[in-house]
Amino acid sequence: MNKDKIVVALGGNALGNSPEEQLMLVKGTAKPIADLIEAGHEVILAHGNGPQVGMINLAMATSAASEAKTPEMPFPECGAMSQGYIGFHLQNAIREELLNRNLNVPVATIVTQVIVDKDDPAFSKPTKPIGAFYSKEEAELLIAQKGYTMVEDAGRGYRRVVASPKPIDVAEKETVEALVEKGHIVITVGGGGIPVIREGNRLIGVPAVIDKDFASEKIAELLDADYLIILTAVEKVAINYGKENEKWLSKLSVEEANQYIEEGHFAPGSMLPKVQAALQFASSKPGRRALITSLEKAKDGIEGKTGTMIQV
Amino acid sequence: MNKDKIVVALGGNALGNSPEEQLMLVKGTAKPIADLIEAGHEVILAHGNGPQVGMINLAMATSAASEAKTPEMPFPECGAMSQGYIGFHLQNAIREELLNRNLNVPVATIVTQVIVDKDDPAFSKPTKPIGAFYSKEEAELLIAQKGYTMVEDAGRGYRRVVASPKPIDVAEKETVEALVEKGHIVITVGGGGIPVIREGNRLIGVPAVIDKDFASEKIAELLDADYLIILTAVEKVAINYGKENEKWLSKLSVEEANQYIEEGHFAPGSMLPKVQAALQFASSKPGRRALITSLEKAKDGIEGKTGTMIQV
Repeated sequence: MNKDKIVVALGGNALGNSPEEQLMLVKGTAKPIADLIEAGHEVILAHGNGPQVGMINLAMATSAASEAKTPEMPFPECGAMSQGYIGFHLQNAIREELLNRNLNVPVATIVTQVIVDKDDPAFSKPTKPIGAFYSKEEAELLIAQKGYTMVEDAGRGYRRVVASPKPIDVAEKETVEALVEKGHIVITVGGGGIPVIREGNRLIGVPAVIDKDFASEKIAELLDADYLIILTAVEKVAINYGKENEKWLSKLSVEEANQYIEEGHFAPGSMLPKVQAALQFASSKPGRRALITSLEKAKDGIEGKTGTMIQV
Repeated sequence: MNKDKIVVALGGNALGNSPEEQLMLVKGTAKPIADLIEAGHEVILAHGNGPQVGMINLAMATSAASEAKTPEMPFPECGAMSQGYIGFHLQNAIREELLNRNLNVPVATIVTQVIVDKDDPAFSKPTKPIGAFYSKEEAELLIAQKGYTMVEDAGRGYRRVVASPKPIDVAEKETVEALVEKGHIVITVGGGGIPVIREGNRLIGVPAVIDKDFASEKIAELLDADYLIILTAVEKVAINYGKENEKWLSKLSVEEANQYIEEGHFAPGSMLPKVQAALQFASSKPGRRALITSLEKAKDGIEGKTGTMIQV
């Protein structure tokens, strides 16, 4: 069996909505990750942070507006916090699972910034809702005072939306690479990475949400990984999903993937970015492959037994 | 000039009380750190997190008790968040300062857990106040419902106190070591590290505050550093501080340090842990030296021009 370098992208929803839930759920996450490591692969773990950064952002805003008067916390800083919070639990669960198998492999979380282009067209049309719901009056005040973009969410009030720009580089790629070379398991680009733009020698945090599938794809390219595994709730990708002629796919060529995307088979914000990121990775260099499957099936998928494999 | 491996311990108070203050203050921090790196030294940066974890803890508790109903956040998780938050700003400021000097050296923050003994006597007498002030009634409720230890703070109400156990190991030491070997600047044991106890193969977060000077001393020992630099507000350590016969010290032998500690020259929670940590490091192996000085004087101190050098 080949020893591959594998970037695994885990969804933030798989990590629950509270520290207690997260502590419980990471145990389940750790097993398939440890399976891959036990099989001799080099594993780099990327993860989402939607519910977690939402919670931190909401708590910070709530407390800032309360008598506690804690400082307002910008969104990138909330993302940095979420990386510490999630990494702490994830690294421990993986460490424990490995030790239970007598594998003494260091596991570490790198606070990771993902660089985006300040001229990314996404900045001119923010789409990602974050944080709390506000009344129309509160929303108007936030637009006037802070320059936020606020959109109405059917019946539930107004929410701030931020841009979702494409990742162009990972600031800490050399650190991740050095650790992978040394055989460490690295947790990185948490939540798609802390979004930053370059200004001369400076990196500046910007309020944005980088899709974790695209960030995972980017770090996989930068590390010259063999595989990108994008974990999701289902074992395989389907076309005509939920319809009578639904069809689960074991393989997907770049041409087929492009065609199915055009035909609108994949839901935006859900399966679409996964297929797009998989496609991008598989097209980026001969021999690179992407797999979309469920957490439980990750090892079977790498062995060719299940999942949807995207390759040229 | 010798190329030394140097652990620098920076105080959390030096990082301000809001993200804006922190972004500004880290610029000043970065310069003397970059001086050491430019001089060819290997630098590992440890830092405190008192104001920052206090702010995060207070915000989380405030929001949990509000209509926002975000989940309650245990203290170790707040510490993990503070490492992401502080590391994000610190690593960028150092990175920028290095690039401005045409030094392309990777800088990274490792989410770091520091292991303490679950039987550490400190757990039976918690002393470190954290979080918000409460009324007597609220405090009694917290004692009954959550088992917190609450103490009265002269006139300002009741506060939770947690233990301050001694560090016995750093869970991510191999990661820090691997990166230092590769020439990376590493930010680690933030806030004294996320406090954890070992239970079999598991690491479990515990509500505690590990003194950042002792945590810095521990990682310096584990990395076989040549120097431990403990930064403080003053250029040198003094005996009879603030009195008529005040005397600033350039050197301090282990014997003198022990004597002055016994005589009560150093304030607990302030200069005392710094001198104790310095003493411990200098005594741990021949050739190891500790320096206590101000941020601005760090490089001069290493060159023997100022500061208080503690050595056998």
